[in-house]
Amino acid sequence: MSGSLSPRASLPPLPFVCAPGYPAAQAWLQALQAALPEERVVALDTLDADQRAACEVAIVANPQPADLRTLPRLQWVHSVWAGVERLVADLGDTDLRIVRLVDPQLADTMAEAVLAWTLYLHRDMPRYARQQAARQWLAHDGVRAQDRTVSLLGLGALGEASARRLLAAGFKVRGWSRTPRQMEGVQCHAGDAELPAMLAQTDILVCLLPLTPQTRGIVGAQALAALPAHASLINFARGPIVDDAALRAALDSGRLAHAVLDVFEQEPLPESSWQWAHPAVTVLPHISAPTDRATASAIVAGNIRRWRASGELPQAVDAARGY
Amino acid sequence: MSGSLSPRASLPPLPFVCAPGYPAAQAWLQALQAALPEERVVALDTLDADQRAACEVAIVANPQPADLRTLPRLQWVHSVWAGVERLVADLGDTDLRIVRLVDPQLADTMAEAVLAWTLYLHRDMPRYARQQAARQWLAHDGVRAQDRTVSLLGLGALGEASARRLLAAGFKVRGWSRTPRQMEGVQCHAGDAELPAMLAQTDILVCLLPLTPQTRGIVGAQALAALPAHASLINFARGPIVDDAALRAALDSGRLAHAVLDVFEQEPLPESSWQWAHPAVTVLPHISAPTDRATASAIVAGNIRRWRASGELPQAVDAARGY
Repeated sequence: MSGSLSPRASLPPLPFVCAPGYPAAQAWLQALQAALPEERVVALDTLDADQRAACEVAIVANPQPADLRTLPRLQWVHSVWAGVERLVADLGDTDLRIVRLVDPQLADTMAEAVLAWTLYLHRDMPRYARQQAARQWLAHDGVRAQDRTVSLLGLGALGEASARRLLAAGFKVRGWSRTPRQMEGVQCHAGDAELPAMLAQTDILVCLLPLTPQTRGIVGAQALAALPAHASLINFARGPIVDDAALRAALDSGRLAHAVLDVFEQEPLPESSWQWAHPAVTVLPHISAPTDRATASAIVAGNIRRWRASGELPQAVDAARGY
Repeated sequence: MSGSLSPRASLPPLPFVCAPGYPAAQAWLQALQAALPEERVVALDTLDADQRAACEVAIVANPQPADLRTLPRLQWVHSVWAGVERLVADLGDTDLRIVRLVDPQLADTMAEAVLAWTLYLHRDMPRYARQQAARQWLAHDGVRAQDRTVSLLGLGALGEASARRLLAAGFKVRGWSRTPRQMEGVQCHAGDAELPAMLAQTDILVCLLPLTPQTRGIVGAQALAALPAHASLINFARGPIVDDAALRAALDSGRLAHAVLDVFEQEPLPESSWQWAHPAVTVLPHISAPTDRATASAIVAGNIRRWRASGELPQAVDAARGY
C-alpha cells in the first residue's frame, strides 16, 4: 500500500461483521483495509453508538443477525462468501440488500477442486489407499475418461467452469439446472422432470447447487436410487442439499460406491459424526474453494468504491430465489 | 471378429511369451488372437519342438530370457510394454531386435495419472486423509496452481503429454531431458549440468524417465537435497531410478513432504517394505498407465501384419541407449 491515501474523516467507518471467534477475522480486516486505504475498515465491536448509527454498509462473513440489527441505517451488506443462504434466511424479513461475492478466481478454484476429486474417484484413489493400509498389491482395470460420465448439479458460474475442465480432461459431461441452459459439449437437463434421466446416466455426481428451499434435500433417497449402482457423489455445495440418512443407507448397502463430502449440515463436522469413519466417505473441512482473501478483498473494494462514487450497487441477491 | 479369416496353415504359430503365472496371460492371448485372426497366437508352452524351431517373432510380456532362447530362429520380439529395460538387459548380448509398445493411448493415460496425482498433492489430499483419520476439522491455506511448479524428469512422449495437461491445469511446468528439447510453455533443461537448477525451482517432481544405466539412482541424495524443502515426488517410471535409502531419509527428516510411488525395485512390493506404512508415502501397485489390452493388441497386430507383408520392422530399441 502506498500509504498516501488516508481515511476520509467525513465517512463513517466500514464495519467488518463476523461471528464471535471467527478464525480469520484479523486477516480479513487487514486484507480489506489494504484494499481500501481511503476507508477505515474496523471490527464491529470497536465502534461506539454514534458510529454504529452512521453505518450504511457492512462487510460480512458469517455474522450474527442480531449484530447487523445494531446498525439502524444499514442499507446493504457485502458478503465475502459466494453462498449467502444463511444471510438470506436471517435477513429475508428486512429491506437490507445482500451482495454476494462473485469472484472469477473462486470459480476457477472450484473447477480445479471438481477436477481433482473427480480424478480421485476416477483413478480409484480411495481403493488404493485401503489396499495400502492392508499392504495389498492389486491392480484394477482402469476406465477411460471418455467412458465415464460426470454430471453437475448446478450450471452457474461454478458449474460452467467445472464443466469446461472436465471436458478438457476427456470426461463425458452432463449438467442440470433449474431453468434450461445450453453449453457446448455438455448434455444439459433442466427442471425436476429431467433430473432422473440424467442421474440414470451418471457415474460421478457433483453437487454445486446453491442452498434454497427447492434444493434442500434434493439429493435424497429418490435421487440416489436413480443413480446406477456403483456411482459416486461429490458434494461441494452445502450440506443440507444431501439427505444424510439416505446417503448413509446408500453407502452402507454398497449401492453408492463413494462420497466426497466437503460440506455438512453442521460445520465443523462434530467429532461423533458417522462420516468421519465410514470407509466409503472422504471428509474434507470445507476447502473445495476457499475464498481467496486477496482477490475477494479487491472485488469488495471495487464494489464499495463504485457505490461511494455513484451510489450504484452490485446486483443484489434475490431473496425469494435465494441466490 | 468376422471369423472369415482362418489362420494361414503355412505360417508358424505366433508364441506369446510371458513369465510363469503371469496374471493376465489368458486375457492377452484372447485379445491378441482377436486382433490377429489370420494368425495362430498361442502360449509358448503349447508349442512342440518343430513349431518352436520355426518361430521368427514372439510377442512378449515379462518373459524369462531362457524361454526366448528356446526359439532358435527368433529374429525379433514385440513387447506389449513401453518399458523394456529388463528385455534389453536380458537380451542385450543377442542379435534379437526388441520392439517396444508405442501407444498414444498410453501417453494419454500416463498424462492423466500425472495430472491426477499432481492435483492429489496440490490439493493436500494426503494431509486431509490423515486429518479425517484423526477426526480433525482444519482447513489449510491453498496454493494457486500458477504459484506451483511441476517439473518432469523425462520429456519423451509421456513427458510431453503430461506437460500439456499440467499447463492446461494452470501449473508452471519445467522439464528435463538428456538432450536439449523445446516445448511451448515449458521451461526446458538438459543434461546433468542443468538438473540442479531445475530441481531448486521444483515443488512437485515427476519421474517419467526410462530406466537406463544413466538414469539408475538419478533421484538420489544429491538430487533430493537440491529440491526446496517441502517439495514432493511422484515416481511413475521405474523403481531403481529413485535411490530408496536416500528417499527414506528425505521423508523421515520431513525435508521431502510426500512421495507417490507407483514403481519399486521389487514388484509386487514385498509385504515387509517400509513404504507401505510410511505416513508420507502413497503406494500404488504399478497402475499409473496400465497397457490397454485392446489398443495395444491392435498396435501389435498392425506391426506384425506389416512385417508379414513387407518384412518391415517397427523401429527397434537402441540396446546401447536402453530405450
